[in-house]
Amino acid sequence: MLKTNVERIQKDIESLAQFSCVEGIGCTRFTYTKEFAQARDYIVSEMKAAGLQVREDAVGIIIGRMEGKNPDAPVVMTGSHFDTVKTGGRFDGPAGVIAGLETARVLHEEGFVPECPIEFVALPEEEGARFGSGLFGSRAMCGQLKPGEIENNKDWDGVTVAEAMKGYGLDPSKAAEAQRKPGEIGTFLELHIEQGPLLEKTKTDIGIVDAIVGLRVFDIHVYGRSDHAGNTPMNMRADTMLAAAKAVTAGTEKALEIGEGTVVTCGRLETVPGAFNIVAKETFFQIDCRSKSIENVDAVMAVITESLQKSAEENPGLSFTMEEKVSAMPVPMKAEIQAVMEEEAADAGISTVRMLSGAGHDAMIMGSLCPVAMVFVPSKDGRSHVPEEWTDYEDLQKGIEVIYRTVKRLAGEK
Amino acid sequence: MLKTNVERIQKDIESLAQFSCVEGIGCTRFTYTKEFAQARDYIVSEMKAAGLQVREDAVGIIIGRMEGKNPDAPVVMTGSHFDTVKTGGRFDGPAGVIAGLETARVLHEEGFVPECPIEFVALPEEEGARFGSGLFGSRAMCGQLKPGEIENNKDWDGVTVAEAMKGYGLDPSKAAEAQRKPGEIGTFLELHIEQGPLLEKTKTDIGIVDAIVGLRVFDIHVYGRSDHAGNTPMNMRADTMLAAAKAVTAGTEKALEIGEGTVVTCGRLETVPGAFNIVAKETFFQIDCRSKSIENVDAVMAVITESLQKSAEENPGLSFTMEEKVSAMPVPMKAEIQAVMEEEAADAGISTVRMLSGAGHDAMIMGSLCPVAMVFVPSKDGRSHVPEEWTDYEDLQKGIEVIYRTVKRLAGEK
Repeated sequence: MLKTNVERIQKDIESLAQFSCVEGIGCTRFTYTKEFAQARDYIVSEMKAAGLQVREDAVGIIIGRMEGKNPDAPVVMTGSHFDTVKTGGRFDGPAGVIAGLETARVLHEEGFVPECPIEFVALPEEEGARFGSGLFGSRAMCGQLKPGEIENNKDWDGVTVAEAMKGYGLDPSKAAEAQRKPGEIGTFLELHIEQGPLLEKTKTDIGIVDAIVGLRVFDIHVYGRSDHAGNTPMNMRADTMLAAAKAVTAGTEKALEIGEGTVVTCGRLETVPGAFNIVAKETFFQIDCRSKSIENVDAVMAVITESLQKSAEENPGLSFTMEEKVSAMPVPMKAEIQAVMEEEAADAGISTVRMLSGAGHDAMIMGSLCPVAMVFVPSKDGRSHVPEEWTDYEDLQKGIEVIYRTVKRLAGEK
Repeated sequence: MLKTNVERIQKDIESLAQFSCVEGIGCTRFTYTKEFAQARDYIVSEMKAAGLQVREDAVGIIIGRMEGKNPDAPVVMTGSHFDTVKTGGRFDGPAGVIAGLETARVLHEEGFVPECPIEFVALPEEEGARFGSGLFGSRAMCGQLKPGEIENNKDWDGVTVAEAMKGYGLDPSKAAEAQRKPGEIGTFLELHIEQGPLLEKTKTDIGIVDAIVGLRVFDIHVYGRSDHAGNTPMNMRADTMLAAAKAVTAGTEKALEIGEGTVVTCGRLETVPGAFNIVAKETFFQIDCRSKSIENVDAVMAVITESLQKSAEENPGLSFTMEEKVSAMPVPMKAEIQAVMEEEAADAGISTVRMLSGAGHDAMIMGSLCPVAMVFVPSKDGRSHVPEEWTDYEDLQKGIEVIYRTVKRLAGEK
């Protein structure tokens, strides 16, 4: 028997989904908007009903606190974000916030008094869908806001983060106060939808995240020559498209050889001039490579670079540039917490699998402040960031049950 | 000593280059325009000065005839087109027309009386740059005009071929009269710029064309799934871009293995949605493959098809379509005429190399009517269809010298 309540979970999801600025198409909830404030009011109200002391911090993070016997002990924190992408779904972000709400309710009903404080949090602007720079709430807690980003980052209407914060009732000059002190937070747990097909395909209830992958994204420009597709022998070309095709093929083979969840993607490629009968004088493509270890990522990128170098050596007139656009180190999850999660899941009859998180999450940032761990719940057809994004409520409940049990273990008597 | 005159050749090129509807940027001479009529008047005038009987046929082909001792013997014909692409160069087309003019002049000066008639021709609309359907003049001569194309094909202003013909002084209802009878033409010779780098790179004076390549162009659509680039394991993807990259790579390896001038080009490729962190759910690309034999082309296309089939088998959810957009059989040149050209070139101290024509030319169409042969002259940097298109006048003269000598041999006493 699970202690958590699937009807309440469903009501939370459905309630928050209403606060969308685009009616009828999935959920669109940009940070610091009217709909965001409505969602805040719902979350605050549910937190208070669960007996939490609720406050809003300097950047709008909602913090519902259950005081511990030792108020100064490092906090067990859990939560996620409550903003969404444009016309996204109702689970990405809210699922983890609701995991906190439901955990708080059950603990409250049980009259549980934790040894250390527990904080249930709901964060803003993880997606970066309004101001372009995501993971905003967790970065604020970890002191990683960039100089000037609050004053300069703007939405589509030219509204700055600072202006939007004022409209929402916050004082942007105090944003730095959101930063938490070292040692203040002992653990951060996050439940999130998988956004991939693995749990569904392997018919597993939930995923215990092993690590959030390391990631590098490169913009690659290959420069060559526009030659006539009929009159230019193969050995007299500087064919940029061919060089790109070889590099993508070679990089993929390397990723498969390495394994360890290494993935490489060329999702965007453009040829210039882009005519069937003209050798492309320029090809632009992007490579996104992720793995459990950054060494794996670098090994794939090395193969891609070597492939392009070989093309340049073999074809006079061919050259290339590679510019790193995104780089993130892997963030390992805390092994002891993973073990607790697995024990608790097994005890509750919930099947688990260890897996990588291929996407970044607030837990990735929180990893700079304290040990972190994540639970994934299944995504129907692996889809997310679309109106069709879906997790069955029973599946979501299983993930929340593990969060509830883990929070209780970590905050309970040792 | 060459018999042809480089100053006259230069004057012809420069004179015709003036008749351009875009001033200062290369040469733009669309069929049946004012500039086209100005070029016609120049060519007619030069032909008359060379003692030719000049007529304009039903589609505007200028025919300058040197009567033979036997007026009914199969004609030796030489020439090329005098239209250009938009902002093209001054050599593509006119070079072959001028080869005829200069040959006529020298033969006239020599008082040469051929055994069979010789016809020097200047053809319209080879590029298809005005009405979209090229090789128009040679197709008219060979009875290959498509039903309705004169009435229906339009330029950018909606002017039909028929309307433009009327404005130019032709009667479109008589277009079919341009068709030449079987046996009437004995040989067609064409000088053209190479439009490729081979002569320049190999420091050879002129090229003796072996064959106009066979050609197939395919539109290929690969359909798959948009997956998250981080959260979707490599073996759970239907990655259309990867399938395309593998197919292009495999096809190219096959073309290199086959040799025989086989070339394969992917000049255009597009990914949907085209984001670095989303597996492309659709990739569209085009393959242009050419070779001396159509069997070679088909062998390359078979490898590309197999590669895509393998991707489809290995990745559930991935499928593809291939649509043939262009198909042309190879047109071999007449071996006996090639031999004559090589003998005459050697005699005149002109170096030659056998090569393929990777592009279509009027000679390709004329091959359906009579034996054909072609001479290529060097293209600086292999470039054509651009204002920078260039052939040194001395190089052009060498090609024309071989046309002159070959015409004289073929039309002279056996």
